[in-house]
Amino acid sequence: MNQSFDIAVIGATGTVGETLVQILEERDFPIANLHLLASSESAGHSVPFRGKNVRVREVDEFDFSKVQLAFFAAGPAVTLSFAPRATAANCAVIDLSGALPSAQAPNLVPEANERALAGLKKPVQLSSPSAAATSLAVVLAPLQALFEIQRVSLTASLAVSTQGREAVTELARQTAELLNARPLEPRFFDRQMAFNLLAQVGTPDEHGHTLLEKRLVRELREVLAQPLLKISVTCVQAPVFFGDSYSVTLQSATAIDLEAVNAALEAAPGIELVEAGDYPTAVGDAVGQDVVYVGRVRAGIDAPAELNLWLTSDNVRKGAALNAVQLAELLIKDLL
Amino acid sequence: MNQSFDIAVIGATGTVGETLVQILEERDFPIANLHLLASSESAGHSVPFRGKNVRVREVDEFDFSKVQLAFFAAGPAVTLSFAPRATAANCAVIDLSGALPSAQAPNLVPEANERALAGLKKPVQLSSPSAAATSLAVVLAPLQALFEIQRVSLTASLAVSTQGREAVTELARQTAELLNARPLEPRFFDRQMAFNLLAQVGTPDEHGHTLLEKRLVRELREVLAQPLLKISVTCVQAPVFFGDSYSVTLQSATAIDLEAVNAALEAAPGIELVEAGDYPTAVGDAVGQDVVYVGRVRAGIDAPAELNLWLTSDNVRKGAALNAVQLAELLIKDLL
Repeated sequence: MNQSFDIAVIGATGTVGETLVQILEERDFPIANLHLLASSESAGHSVPFRGKNVRVREVDEFDFSKVQLAFFAAGPAVTLSFAPRATAANCAVIDLSGALPSAQAPNLVPEANERALAGLKKPVQLSSPSAAATSLAVVLAPLQALFEIQRVSLTASLAVSTQGREAVTELARQTAELLNARPLEPRFFDRQMAFNLLAQVGTPDEHGHTLLEKRLVRELREVLAQPLLKISVTCVQAPVFFGDSYSVTLQSATAIDLEAVNAALEAAPGIELVEAGDYPTAVGDAVGQDVVYVGRVRAGIDAPAELNLWLTSDNVRKGAALNAVQLAELLIKDLL
Repeated sequence: MNQSFDIAVIGATGTVGETLVQILEERDFPIANLHLLASSESAGHSVPFRGKNVRVREVDEFDFSKVQLAFFAAGPAVTLSFAPRATAANCAVIDLSGALPSAQAPNLVPEANERALAGLKKPVQLSSPSAAATSLAVVLAPLQALFEIQRVSLTASLAVSTQGREAVTELARQTAELLNARPLEPRFFDRQMAFNLLAQVGTPDEHGHTLLEKRLVRELREVLAQPLLKISVTCVQAPVFFGDSYSVTLQSATAIDLEAVNAALEAAPGIELVEAGDYPTAVGDAVGQDVVYVGRVRAGIDAPAELNLWLTSDNVRKGAALNAVQLAELLIKDLL
């Protein structure tokens, strides 16, 4: 295949957008022209690509008929404003914001539900799920073949980079203030984030669930094709810059075959299984890597039908930018 | 009651021992003579009590017949060596190390199973459970009256002070090194603890469970009088100095009545219920307090028989030292 494509990246100056551009280069994605776009505040910056600095332009003025594929790596509002324009211009859309309904732009994780690509109409619209749903789907998909997952109970300890660069800067600032015994005045977060865990990422609805938690449940059910899967999830903000950690309990109807679980995880794409006795960490293992790390694979104590896992993954890379690029690699086979 | 008692605190120079002495003073525990004891390395230090500095002496040379009650706040080895001597000298024992079998020294949390005191023979031996089991028992006990807890799935994010002063110093040191962009050489922990989560506290057995996780399960079952309760637990080391956080999912056979849950938690002793929409944190709420904070009380998404909770508590104070002092307050009523 010698064809190459004209591509747009919207939100190119954000943590995910910048990593996405970097991965397009690393994986030698067949690009003829790359258009980097952002809101008016960020336009004018430039982002390195193939040894040059590519200038970021305003998305408002962009003519989507110039490209065959657009990645939307900004917020939901930007996707809702501009994705329809892209589609109208016959440009495929890969959205990372969660803004598009899945009937219009199905959630897709190549390691889990590549099959969902079949029968999509051009111009294709796809959603790359939240980092948590993406990483969990990579690990739970190969287990679905082994046993029926009846329930998932999940504590997701998310890196502050989930909330963008300001949150990263704020964790560093708070930490320095505290270490220097200066009074803490929280800015980005509404309370002390350094040396602390915050039990809520975003505002909960009247039932106590945050948008992020509901998005995770919706996306994971869709990607695993288990629309009624029971998932109890708590998304926690951890004082970690990059890399998410997931403590997961799966419930089966029957005793878990741990050997088969280990073999399936070992064989599955996108996973690095850490040997028993050891465990992966966000910072030490996952950051900068293309796989989800899995460790602490074990049954419950006196609960052989429960499987416990500890996962870590790079929330910006594996959880977001890389998955979107993997989707693009599938699209260029015959859907662009 | 005007009686006062002669008391020994073993491990008086540790984080828990020191807090225990402070709480004995705060609560005006009726003490005639206070003997502070420690291993030979720590002997010679002094600890403040009632405006004086009390010198810490070597436990090896102590004559337990001088006291009516001894708190063991050092490690399991110290308890195993010296608790039998205390008992032989007719001295009551409250052990915080988890070393004594529960048939000999039952685990007790006053808010949950005060009834276990009935029928104990003198000299009484009691165990004050691990911080995690203590805090969880305080919260789960009042819920047992509302519904049958069938399963518990728990991620316990533990403060580094769980592992003593050295761990606290090491987190501060690592953090400072990283903020100053100096290379990190982990000492106390075997890898980067700052800005990271470690998925294992201690070494796992051949089934993947750590001693702390097994202790927690055993103690919680005992205190809740549910010997077969299914508990999946992951104890995580968080980059937090003081204060544990617990993400808990409880499973009931029938739909949870959230109003009744909130009312029960509101009415129960030892609990501070945080209003819906807000949530407690370890650092901002729990540290230095005598209650377990509970927030994010909610059912699962489309899973009305699941109850999710977020708890925070001071691991040194509420989880350990205060519980031991509360036990002593019960003992002096008629068991000393």
